[in-house]
Amino acid sequence: MSRARVVVIGASGYIGGEAVRLLLGHPGVELAAITANENAGKRLDEVQPNLRGYGDLVYRKDWPEADAYVLSLPHGEAMSVVPKLKGKVVDLSGDFRLQDTAVFEKYYKTPHKAPDVLRTFAYGVPEVNRARIKEADRVAAGGCFASAAILSLWPLRELAAGRAIVDGKTGSSGSGAKPGEKTHHPFRSTSFFAYEPFHHRHTPEIEQATGLEVLFQPHSAPLVRGVFTTSYVPLLRESTTDEILEVFRKAYAGERFVRLGKGTTNVNHVKGSNFVDLGIAAEGKTAIVFAAIDNLVKGGAGQGVQCLNLMLGLPEDAGLLQPPAQP
Amino acid sequence: MSRARVVVIGASGYIGGEAVRLLLGHPGVELAAITANENAGKRLDEVQPNLRGYGDLVYRKDWPEADAYVLSLPHGEAMSVVPKLKGKVVDLSGDFRLQDTAVFEKYYKTPHKAPDVLRTFAYGVPEVNRARIKEADRVAAGGCFASAAILSLWPLRELAAGRAIVDGKTGSSGSGAKPGEKTHHPFRSTSFFAYEPFHHRHTPEIEQATGLEVLFQPHSAPLVRGVFTTSYVPLLRESTTDEILEVFRKAYAGERFVRLGKGTTNVNHVKGSNFVDLGIAAEGKTAIVFAAIDNLVKGGAGQGVQCLNLMLGLPEDAGLLQPPAQP
Amino acid sequence: MSRARVVVIGASGYIGGEAVRLLLGHPGVELAAITANENAGKRLDEVQPNLRGYGDLVYRKDWPEADAYVLSLPHGEAMSVVPKLKGKVVDLSGDFRLQDTAVFEKYYKTPHKAPDVLRTFAYGVPEVNRARIKEADRVAAGGCFASAAILSLWPLRELAAGRAIVDGKTGSSGSGAKPGEKTHHPFRSTSFFAYEPFHHRHTPEIEQATGLEVLFQPHSAPLVRGVFTTSYVPLLRESTTDEILEVFRKAYAGERFVRLGKGTTNVNHVKGSNFVDLGIAAEGKTAIVFAAIDNLVKGGAGQGVQCLNLMLGLPEDAGLLQPPAQP
Amino acid sequence: MSRARVVVIGASGYIGGEAVRLLLGHPGVELAAITANENAGKRLDEVQPNLRGYGDLVYRKDWPEADAYVLSLPHGEAMSVVPKLKGKVVDLSGDFRLQDTAVFEKYYKTPHKAPDVLRTFAYGVPEVNRARIKEADRVAAGGCFASAAILSLWPLRELAAGRAIVDGKTGSSGSGAKPGEKTHHPFRSTSFFAYEPFHHRHTPEIEQATGLEVLFQPHSAPLVRGVFTTSYVPLLRESTTDEILEVFRKAYAGERFVRLGKGTTNVNHVKGSNFVDLGIAAEGKTAIVFAAIDNLVKGGAGQGVQCLNLMLGLPEDAGLLQPPAQP
Repeated sequence: MSRARVVVIGASGYIGGEAVRLLLGHPGVELAAITANENAGKRLDEVQPNLRGYGDLVYRKDWPEADAYVLSLPHGEAMSVVPKLKGKVVDLSGDFRLQDTAVFEKYYKTPHKAPDVLRTFAYGVPEVNRARIKEADRVAAGGCFASAAILSLWPLRELAAGRAIVDGKTGSSGSGAKPGEKTHHPFRSTSFFAYEPFHHRHTPEIEQATGLEVLFQPHSAPLVRGVFTTSYVPLLRESTTDEILEVFRKAYAGERFVRLGKGTTNVNHVKGSNFVDLGIAAEGKTAIVFAAIDNLVKGGAGQGVQCLNLMLGLPEDAGLLQPPAQP
Repeated sequence: MSRARVVVIGASGYIGGEAVRLLLGHPGVELAAITANENAGKRLDEVQPNLRGYGDLVYRKDWPEADAYVLSLPHGEAMSVVPKLKGKVVDLSGDFRLQDTAVFEKYYKTPHKAPDVLRTFAYGVPEVNRARIKEADRVAAGGCFASAAILSLWPLRELAAGRAIVDGKTGSSGSGAKPGEKTHHPFRSTSFFAYEPFHHRHTPEIEQATGLEVLFQPHSAPLVRGVFTTSYVPLLRESTTDEILEVFRKAYAGERFVRLGKGTTNVNHVKGSNFVDLGIAAEGKTAIVFAAIDNLVKGGAGQGVQCLNLMLGLPEDAGLLQPPAQP
Repeated sequence: MSRARVVVIGASGYIGGEAVRLLLGHPGVELAAITANENAGKRLDEVQPNLRGYGDLVYRKDWPEADAYVLSLPHGEAMSVVPKLKGKVVDLSGDFRLQDTAVFEKYYKTPHKAPDVLRTFAYGVPEVNRARIKEADRVAAGGCFASAAILSLWPLRELAAGRAIVDGKTGSSGSGAKPGEKTHHPFRSTSFFAYEPFHHRHTPEIEQATGLEVLFQPHSAPLVRGVFTTSYVPLLRESTTDEILEVFRKAYAGERFVRLGKGTTNVNHVKGSNFVDLGIAAEGKTAIVFAAIDNLVKGGAGQGVQCLNLMLGLPEDAGLLQPPAQP
Repeated sequence: MSRARVVVIGASGYIGGEAVRLLLGHPGVELAAITANENAGKRLDEVQPNLRGYGDLVYRKDWPEADAYVLSLPHGEAMSVVPKLKGKVVDLSGDFRLQDTAVFEKYYKTPHKAPDVLRTFAYGVPEVNRARIKEADRVAAGGCFASAAILSLWPLRELAAGRAIVDGKTGSSGSGAKPGEKTHHPFRSTSFFAYEPFHHRHTPEIEQATGLEVLFQPHSAPLVRGVFTTSYVPLLRESTTDEILEVFRKAYAGERFVRLGKGTTNVNHVKGSNFVDLGIAAEGKTAIVFAAIDNLVKGGAGQGVQCLNLMLGLPEDAGLLQPPAQP
């Protein structure tokens, strides 16, 4: 079978770079081109020296025709680009995740430039929206924190007695490849801090996907890779850990990228991979769900490739099964 | 005035080492002796090379008479030692923090060996129990997570509408100086994980000091120093950040070691110091309180010295005002 | 073609774990069994939770017949095991690297238990010894520091005017999966220190492979993965960077895992991969060669698989071409 | 005795911040003012939140009259400011370290703007130049790498048989408080790399102070604080470790900030302090000297305060004896 031609638009950053890495090793895809703004004209390995020795890709400003496009642009830019693209689209930004433009504008503080296009998008967390993704031409892959939280809460959406609290922790790669004050090594290495209480953009994304009310509080940890979320869910009735685990087992039966267990999880075990590790603890009328993902993979490029596979009729796990490394 | 003679019992570990560091620089105290088990006979700087050049202390097995003793022994050992001591006592372990022996035995899984002695102890978080500490001969300094949480919740104890959720994160130094699997550098550096859902020992300590019901969930972060807690408190009535901040300002007026503000805090800013930085956010009927302490200082040796100062009639901040360093 | 059956003996540690990871993704190999001592009876993912979802391997005490064995045992143990094995052997320990037993005994402080077997081993750094490895039944893969240094010095062996100085730096994973004082997270995270001046075991290994006299000085860095070496080579005649780079280009023409350039290299770019990145600077009669490898891959399991491929007649890069990730 | 009024010019960066920290705790000094460009008008604790609670200092653009000025400006700016200052001056930049303007211009790639002023400066590493510093009105404190190397080589200046090789490693705080690509947390945390082979600015500084020929090669480590240097010195005659250690003992007898030993040292033990820990190993005709300093203290602000103390007739260690913390 001929391989699908795929272009990565915005391939300079961390998530774009991970999309390139995954597609270079993907058996069903030909990585046809990579684009960038500032880096146009440079060879891939000038920007990503890790990828030296994997072909002769050069960053371009424009994009050729292709079967599919994976977009990893800064928030706000994808909505200008998507209307120009022929072919399937997986967008890794926040531009097309929220279906309600009023909610979008409240959280992103800017008008949505392409509300009609927005309606053509399916939300891209396959474990909770597979059927729609398979049929969609355009998918907005879920955000990093949002994906961890949604996968934590979704099986409990009928059992919850009220607002869930999601306490999230992220590594520094979530802030992208551009240096900044909060990701300056001397500062970040010995820091742990919170940000954006009550108003983080992933809040409405979690609520939209799960139907639950959510209080989401993000934090920055001195990790490089990884998102860890701790979700506190009030339950309608008293439950044990075993009972809640069984709920999750049913909800995620057959899911290739969900690994379930009792007690904690660890971002260490998923780094570089598309897995989401979920850990369960319950007592009385409270469930705690721990989730660990690699923010750049299951919370970014990997989830995008997973969606792309579904859209292209490829095996859902194609290109995503390299065993993660330790330590 | 002659200086108080103080002995540190159990001075090999991280908190004991910090007690030594602080007392060496304390203007009102003479560090009369240091004790250790395995390290008895060694010079201080053989175990703590950072302290080379600060006198000729040698670890002893026994202790001389002294005005006061600071104990930094493994949990379970202080209760055998304290009954033998003449002089004031500051215990940095968990042995004497819980006044109810049934609660102690539930959480520490062992009978209390000295329940009579337990009753002679005051709980050592000066900002919430100063009057009793001043008059006490024996003080059990608050635990690291517990201190951060107590200082976060105490001003809200009359305003809370129900159970508070405390999501805690700790650096690896909280596990002590003995190497272990969870603090092995190749593992810990890229890890974030939770532990002991629902049953951590600091839960009853927080509840005892604040009178609130608490769900406390600890996590391990790839930090060395620092405890950060995020406390979610349901409020009896809708409140703004400014209103809650004002509550804290009143509660902690004049407190030398409490630094208050809106929004987040950061463990980075308190490392090496006895400060607790508290940050406030509130919306609707929820307050979020962020707390950052150095787990070995305000969550350990520094708080112990603060209590000691009160017990000895010294200025409360004596020996505790070295400006913390950046970065 | 049927796949070669391979067993990993000693698959609990970091290098053994990497061997398992690489062989699980190897298209020409069937990972037939994994062995361990303490962990015998456990499932692979109980010890290496990252590998959950990759089959049902269980650690065994003994080993089945196989086409080849990859050994990742503590130094000193392989020499007891190898004589019992039928089939090809790649040993990742230091037991069979030094051909001269007197040198072995000087540096390893123990008699060699299998000197006859020693003579059947080829030294396993393919770029400098490919022909012998191809024909060998037993290969002792080069040590981590040694491999970086050998690949740095080998092209200069005819141009050097005297003793080379190799200043090496390693991440903590080089000390293995067992916790210890020097790899305790609170200590290691803020440490940089040297060890074993003049007498490190990799010194004779470098000298044996290059024929040069070498002063090798190792250091511990607060990295997890990576070995970086800086080699200072006195030259017979004045040379420029370009001239020395050209020497390396010729020496390593066609080498899949050698990436050459001017100036520095970085362990960041090779982590998780089998690449060795070499950087050249020269001025007057001195060349400086910078080398970066992943100590667990090109300095361990990856190099072992590379040797194994040669021994089995497989493509040399089979199973070794997953693109490394950033950041 | 009245305290000396001191101003820190350029107090926003890491070394300037450390100067502020040390002077705030200095018993013989009144910190009269702090200056900054971009941060002028801000309170100290807006820029350095760690120092909240230590007075009401506000950054100014200009400076008041004072007994002494400590300058921590970017390289190239101090030479414009110093001529305007009345009072003693300690400059922490590179502007006045090299006495030969031709050498300065070669390494700093810019003409020296104040060659006459240059001649009024003494070089500020007290252990090798105390007499001149005591009498000087202006001192250029030694650079971080240079100080570690000079203190490693100076006792051997009569015993060396030729060029010394100094392999240096620095933490990220050495690059300053401004974020950049090489200090971006996701990158730096897993990086080890070299830079500026053969031409680093500290090379001539080391040569000027020791009279030795030096090949200096710097590297970046994923540390925050600390400079570690490994100096390889060819000796005129065969020597043992004990003999070389004795040479150092004599050279540094009575030095408060030099801690000597056999074998390695560790940046961990000196962090936050003004100590230089030196370790010695020798065999045949080679000595290896390991040096560990805190680059911001003994390699920056602390050394500046040490020089200032000498210039003001204060005890040399005033304000510099806070015991460093572990871990």
